[in-house]
Amino acid sequence: MELLVDTAFDPAAGELSEDESKHCISVMRHRVGDEVYVCNGRGLLCRCVIVEAQKNKPCRLRVEAQETKPQPLHRLHMAVAPTKNTDRFEWFVEKAVELGVSEITPIICQHSERVNLRVDRLQRLVVAAAKQSLKFHLPIVNAPVKLSDLIASCNEAQRFILHCREGAKPHLFNATLQRTSTIVLIGPEGDIAKEEIALSERHEFKAATLGSERLRTETAAMAACHIVNLRNVIC
Amino acid sequence: MELLVDTAFDPAAGELSEDESKHCISVMRHRVGDEVYVCNGRGLLCRCVIVEAQKNKPCRLRVEAQETKPQPLHRLHMAVAPTKNTDRFEWFVEKAVELGVSEITPIICQHSERVNLRVDRLQRLVVAAAKQSLKFHLPIVNAPVKLSDLIASCNEAQRFILHCREGAKPHLFNATLQRTSTIVLIGPEGDIAKEEIALSERHEFKAATLGSERLRTETAAMAACHIVNLRNVIC
Repeated sequence: MELLVDTAFDPAAGELSEDESKHCISVMRHRVGDEVYVCNGRGLLCRCVIVEAQKNKPCRLRVEAQETKPQPLHRLHMAVAPTKNTDRFEWFVEKAVELGVSEITPIICQHSERVNLRVDRLQRLVVAAAKQSLKFHLPIVNAPVKLSDLIASCNEAQRFILHCREGAKPHLFNATLQRTSTIVLIGPEGDIAKEEIALSERHEFKAATLGSERLRTETAAMAACHIVNLRNVIC
Repeated sequence: MELLVDTAFDPAAGELSEDESKHCISVMRHRVGDEVYVCNGRGLLCRCVIVEAQKNKPCRLRVEAQETKPQPLHRLHMAVAPTKNTDRFEWFVEKAVELGVSEITPIICQHSERVNLRVDRLQRLVVAAAKQSLKFHLPIVNAPVKLSDLIASCNEAQRFILHCREGAKPHLFNATLQRTSTIVLIGPEGDIAKEEIALSERHEFKAATLGSERLRTETAAMAACHIVNLRNVIC
């Protein structure tokens, strides 16, 4: 199944956006009569047949069937400090979409070495990964925010912070409640500062661990995302 | 803690190999008097002080303390078909080392599009990832082998095959026994052929699933590796 993602898609109008028309006709080389699936990134999935496919014109479709895919039973928000090497953060974003994530926020911490990111590039990566892995609800990628702003404004029911500092911490798998909106906070390569941990604790973030392995930032972020999703499917 | 890995290291002789001497002196810029940790990749870890550090000469060390790190309680062998895009397979190798793997074998299947790989490059990647994530037992990377040869010769107690074909399959997390040597087999992008699945079943491989998400080959391989390791730490 090949998926087109067009956030502005209106089944009544049956026209693809300029970008997605180009992708459909010039990249995927679809022709009139081909069957394609179009998703609006908010759960609407339409099975369509192409009725007009000319270069530099909107691709026109006839909708044969449509359905609304349910939201996942848990919402997962990953708040992760960008890695020094941007490739590694982009890799995390791709993998998080595949494994299942609802929202990604790059966070700026006291020890952050990288504070800017090309969010448009990340959003394109998210769309590509969502197409590849058939995600009908498009994950959100936010612009980078300061850790303190994120902590003050987050509204997830279940909040975890992963850091390398001493202290007894439960394993994230055991600490995660099923079917509960969750945010996981992961600091930069230089770790999260003590005051940042204290601030997060005042906002009900709980420390958790991923086990005894020493993991790179992007590996820890990917592993945390995988663990929360696993916890939601394992009985 | 910075780790040097020298598979030929003899604590009695106290000399680093040519490559690791270069790495220690020219890359890490260590000088006489510096403390370094040297591991032989088979569990031996030595705390040393540098006593001679000249360019183009072996770096000489005085061993201050040594200990033998135990093997992990379970052995994990990942047998994975190389992805068309080599970067993606290399990325899997790096992540598998971080998350914990004992052996990686690239396998050649009926539907494989890529049948060769630079094993020397993968081995260098393994050493770099082992240093970074403090693995004292260096994972083995084998040369690519035919799936049928791998199946006929494998001796792990617990054997899983992951494929996308129909049929009820338990989740890999629930199917995994703790503290048991394990092999996980993952086919190429075009999936494993029916006859290959039948052959694996005759050799006691059991089908398992990673859940309902559609994952790329390298993501599935990394997720499987993570799941087996998680199962071994979660009570």
